[in-house]
Amino acid sequence: MHDTQPPAHILDAAVALTPQAANHYTGHTSPAYGNMVGPFGGTIGATLLNAVMLHPERLGDPLTLTVNFAAPIADGAFSVLARVMRTNRSTQHWMVELQQDGQVAAFATAITAIRRDTWSETDADFPLAPPPAQVPQSPAHPRAAWTACYEMRFISGMPGQPASEQGGHPSETRLWIRDQPPRPLDFLSLAAMCDAFYPRVLLRRQSWTPAGTVALTTYFHADAAQLQAHGDAPLLGAARGLRFNKGFFDQSAEMWTPAGVLLATSHQVVYFKE
Amino acid sequence: MHDTQPPAHILDAAVALTPQAANHYTGHTSPAYGNMVGPFGGTIGATLLNAVMLHPERLGDPLTLTVNFAAPIADGAFSVLARVMRTNRSTQHWMVELQQDGQVAAFATAITAIRRDTWSETDADFPLAPPPAQVPQSPAHPRAAWTACYEMRFISGMPGQPASEQGGHPSETRLWIRDQPPRPLDFLSLAAMCDAFYPRVLLRRQSWTPAGTVALTTYFHADAAQLQAHGDAPLLGAARGLRFNKGFFDQSAEMWTPAGVLLATSHQVVYFKE
Repeated sequence: MHDTQPPAHILDAAVALTPQAANHYTGHTSPAYGNMVGPFGGTIGATLLNAVMLHPERLGDPLTLTVNFAAPIADGAFSVLARVMRTNRSTQHWMVELQQDGQVAAFATAITAIRRDTWSETDADFPLAPPPAQVPQSPAHPRAAWTACYEMRFISGMPGQPASEQGGHPSETRLWIRDQPPRPLDFLSLAAMCDAFYPRVLLRRQSWTPAGTVALTTYFHADAAQLQAHGDAPLLGAARGLRFNKGFFDQSAEMWTPAGVLLATSHQVVYFKE
Repeated sequence: MHDTQPPAHILDAAVALTPQAANHYTGHTSPAYGNMVGPFGGTIGATLLNAVMLHPERLGDPLTLTVNFAAPIADGAFSVLARVMRTNRSTQHWMVELQQDGQVAAFATAITAIRRDTWSETDADFPLAPPPAQVPQSPAHPRAAWTACYEMRFISGMPGQPASEQGGHPSETRLWIRDQPPRPLDFLSLAAMCDAFYPRVLLRRQSWTPAGTVALTTYFHADAAQLQAHGDAPLLGAARGLRFNKGFFDQSAEMWTPAGVLLATSHQVVYFKE
């Protein structure tokens, strides 16, 4: 009973995997990241990415992650199978499956890459935002436990506020966000945070409708050293809807450092009921 | 020798698959859609989607398509394996692999869905554009055969034109595009067209650097009937780069009808050399 390890951050506990046979892991959903029904999709995606991060054959850092939420995930245990689809000189392609009761409940494709210095430029516009300290922190949503795992400071597009008070783009949210308690940024936390924007249809319609992500693609624009250099400061997140039609819509998000470095862009398609 | 069938459109010939065993098909790259090296990625993605379209277990219309270009594809024959990962009441998740010489050269995940009428709205801005007849058609690129398979009328961001003459967003292309010869729009042609925007780094830097798509995600915002209603009129395409860093960049594209209906949004990450 002389455990000198500090307790793991709740995110690390949520995405933890135990290696079993080659390519096989087991994991467990985390009550801390519970959603209204089942687990928060952001930590499920990060867990699938973690199977790649932990894999002994991994080459380089994550470049892309596409997560398909194929079926409802039950609270409890799951198994994860991660396999290399193809390895090139500087890129590697992955397929990862999450199974419960012998059925695929979620799966992901990912690319890892060895990155090297090249010309660098940003064409997306850094969103206007007051510094985090000037924006009040929002309380967690009582029915979505995972929202308590993030410090969220909404600049615009806060949930539940009438459209008439929002101004600007009809489905945009801008917020400062970081893990709560703070945790140094890495690919796992960044991947999870990219899914922390609530469904745009709720903001757009200002009324409740069942909605849930069916697929999420994230592009990472930094390597591990660049993320590590960021530390645990908040990120500026901005998300907008593009088109809502026939039961589905898409939304795109950007994650920026306070200094204006675009660390990730993310896109998802979301089911909605009416 | 009494063949009364009209000859297939070159696109249909390019994406054609011959069913073999269950879930298995064979196909062949098309010289008409050759690129500088190997085949045009757009028709490869459309071929993988065609494996889903032809599958006897398919439920509904394509909603998402993510293609991973895992390795160079050689001109010639390939085999395709398509399997259902999960079927729900109104959505279905797919994994499709393209193999050459027993190795995975490309693979895709896709979601098909039964769509139903709901509230509908578009938040993306319809790009400003003169009508197609007022925009001259660009000649095909002599070293990229596939460019002759599209009628392309560049409004801005044409390849090879100096940045000083472009104006506007530094990495945006706007163009009217349709199959050449014209062909009624469907999911296959729309999927291929979403990859017809040349790498943004070439426009941004106005110099030649090797570049190629490594992954492409497309979201379809219409069902089969809505695409069929479009016919063979040109689409207005707009694409922009977001961030270029450490050997990769991402670009996002929108495909609109002349009447302002957003039919698809598409995102890709692209390798570049320097």
